[in-house]
Amino acid sequence: MGINYKRELEDAARKMILVHRPKTLIQLIVRMIVNKVKIRHAGILLYNNKLNSYILTVSRGKVGLKIPTGFIRIDTDNAMIKFFMDKTNHRYIDGGVLVYNKISRMLRNRYLLRKHKDLRELLTSLRTQMNLLEAVVAIPSYFQNELLGVLLLGKKVSGRNFHHDELDFFVALAHDVAMAIRNAQLFEELQGQIERNKRLFLETTKALATTIDAKDHYTRGHTERVTQISLSLAKKLIITERIKVDPVFLDDLNISALLHDIGKIGIPEHILNKKGELNEEERRKINEHPLIGAAILEPIEDLKRAIDGVKYHHERFDGRGYPEGLKGDRIPLISSIIAVADSYDAMTTSRPYRPALNKKQAVEEIRKCIDTQFQPVAAKALIELYEEGCL
Amino acid sequence: MGINYKRELEDAARKMILVHRPKTLIQLIVRMIVNKVKIRHAGILLYNNKLNSYILTVSRGKVGLKIPTGFIRIDTDNAMIKFFMDKTNHRYIDGGVLVYNKISRMLRNRYLLRKHKDLRELLTSLRTQMNLLEAVVAIPSYFQNELLGVLLLGKKVSGRNFHHDELDFFVALAHDVAMAIRNAQLFEELQGQIERNKRLFLETTKALATTIDAKDHYTRGHTERVTQISLSLAKKLIITERIKVDPVFLDDLNISALLHDIGKIGIPEHILNKKGELNEEERRKINEHPLIGAAILEPIEDLKRAIDGVKYHHERFDGRGYPEGLKGDRIPLISSIIAVADSYDAMTTSRPYRPALNKKQAVEEIRKCIDTQFQPVAAKALIELYEEGCL
Repeated sequence: MGINYKRELEDAARKMILVHRPKTLIQLIVRMIVNKVKIRHAGILLYNNKLNSYILTVSRGKVGLKIPTGFIRIDTDNAMIKFFMDKTNHRYIDGGVLVYNKISRMLRNRYLLRKHKDLRELLTSLRTQMNLLEAVVAIPSYFQNELLGVLLLGKKVSGRNFHHDELDFFVALAHDVAMAIRNAQLFEELQGQIERNKRLFLETTKALATTIDAKDHYTRGHTERVTQISLSLAKKLIITERIKVDPVFLDDLNISALLHDIGKIGIPEHILNKKGELNEEERRKINEHPLIGAAILEPIEDLKRAIDGVKYHHERFDGRGYPEGLKGDRIPLISSIIAVADSYDAMTTSRPYRPALNKKQAVEEIRKCIDTQFQPVAAKALIELYEEGCL
Repeated sequence: MGINYKRELEDAARKMILVHRPKTLIQLIVRMIVNKVKIRHAGILLYNNKLNSYILTVSRGKVGLKIPTGFIRIDTDNAMIKFFMDKTNHRYIDGGVLVYNKISRMLRNRYLLRKHKDLRELLTSLRTQMNLLEAVVAIPSYFQNELLGVLLLGKKVSGRNFHHDELDFFVALAHDVAMAIRNAQLFEELQGQIERNKRLFLETTKALATTIDAKDHYTRGHTERVTQISLSLAKKLIITERIKVDPVFLDDLNISALLHDIGKIGIPEHILNKKGELNEEERRKINEHPLIGAAILEPIEDLKRAIDGVKYHHERFDGRGYPEGLKGDRIPLISSIIAVADSYDAMTTSRPYRPALNKKQAVEEIRKCIDTQFQPVAAKALIELYEEGCL
């Protein structure tokens, strides 16, 4: 038989469908084939949608190929690819699997070449391609009649030829490999889409939040800075294990910080931009912004926790904040974090009625207000960020 | 041998990894097993993350099972599940595959039961479980040492027992099936995430756009109506094949229509809400809103086409619009669609300086302005929607 590697390769192929990174998967497979089958090199020509070409993605072996990985790009009008895609000529070559020795043998068969007029040209170009790729066997893989890729096998280290049953085995394996790769590609596409959507969501929210922010002339850049500081605070608390949060906490915090002042859209411009000090009525109006913001976002189910950040970022740890006067641990963590970042940024930017504090002064103010205005864990994290030069 | 179905099932298993809907996949597999192997029924117990239980997802056969699909839910403290999860007892039962006849035989082996004290209890409870599920064979599938599921086989139609080599084959098959199902589940999760993200993005954008809209007292609900009408127009044009668009056109149009007036955030409130007619300076200021809107969104790469809709929704087909005075086909389709919807909604709502037109009058106005103000294809689609009673 000579295929004692069969079982091992089959088992490995079974596991590969849950490898969802095409590059890792191809490297895994090709390395496995090279090692188990003991061949000089192996490669996979894989169809690339964007380029409408087949790319030699990986090719490895102890001896090594002269052609560097990713160098070879084969267009769909290439003779070998055409042969695999258009099955009419497969009647000459059993199963459509190309074996170098067999092609050479056919090219020496004068009777055959005389009988089939275009065969010499076809065989010659196929042989040229295999030479170029240093392949002694080329096996196509199809899905729904489309050529997904080609498995290329180099010479055996022993110098022997591949047996019939080995070729049969590789045909099945090539099919499994093609399916696994296709599957991984689809996964990568979906994951890419998720990343793109997330970025789009964050960028759009940021653009709109920043614009609403810009209505309030004293707070230019405020939203972006509060978001950055809030995220740094939270990461600090997570890394030092002072808080335990679920995987989407940072995403929620990001959105929440971006939107924390969104309610200001509901405050008349003349109040927002008033040069002098605000009277009681105006102050009362401004203090409505957390509730207005929460009300705007309220219908959105998936923003539940982010809305908490918007609604409660003016609560105080001692219960003397607004809108609800929540106290201590009843204030959601997300809003405590934003509250610290928000106050720090407010203090370090100038207002018409007072100049900006410097960083050191602002941090000192925050330290003084631990346990009264600020939740201690969040406030201490800000002090540490300052001491580490990260503010 | 008796396993002439082997090849067919193997081939089918190979193809199933690209079936990405778990339910379809399981139905496919179980039906296939029942038909090819000629057994009375087959089922798959599949781990359900949310319920932390194993669910009998599908079970079919010509004879039929008494237990309806989805009815049986088996908790992780069930004897059979525990046996599969904790492999310490697998020393009694070769490979951990449960065969009803074998269990019965062991229960009659007094010597064995005397030697291993707790074995009788274990075997009895396993037999009870198999009786309950009407299974003569139960094969576990693992991924990374976790029990993904259990393949259950009913009696053969012929009444014969399963052979050793058949069982070996089903162990391999069960593993393939488990991997394929796990893969499909991961796919479904990703797709669900994409849906959720998309909804979140749309809802948030809508909430913010509507709020900005609300600053302009005369246009309450305007953004949502323009979005609805724009989407109806585009769908009409797509269905009747008057336009050819790529798959994300409707998504882009949706966002673009939601954001078309976003630039009004940059217009002072006293101009937006002025009761009387606007003077030239104020008119000029208002006419900046498409450019302000485009500028706000400009940094967002993935909104490229949506930005076109925002920027050019006040262009006119005859080139006499603003901001650029684009003419005819140089106006992007997305903005021509929004322009028609926007004008229709403006005409059918009242303004301080004029009452609302009724639908018929507004449609008549639009008809009059085909080729001057409006792009003809988009305008005609609106007229058709009106005539069909869809406005």
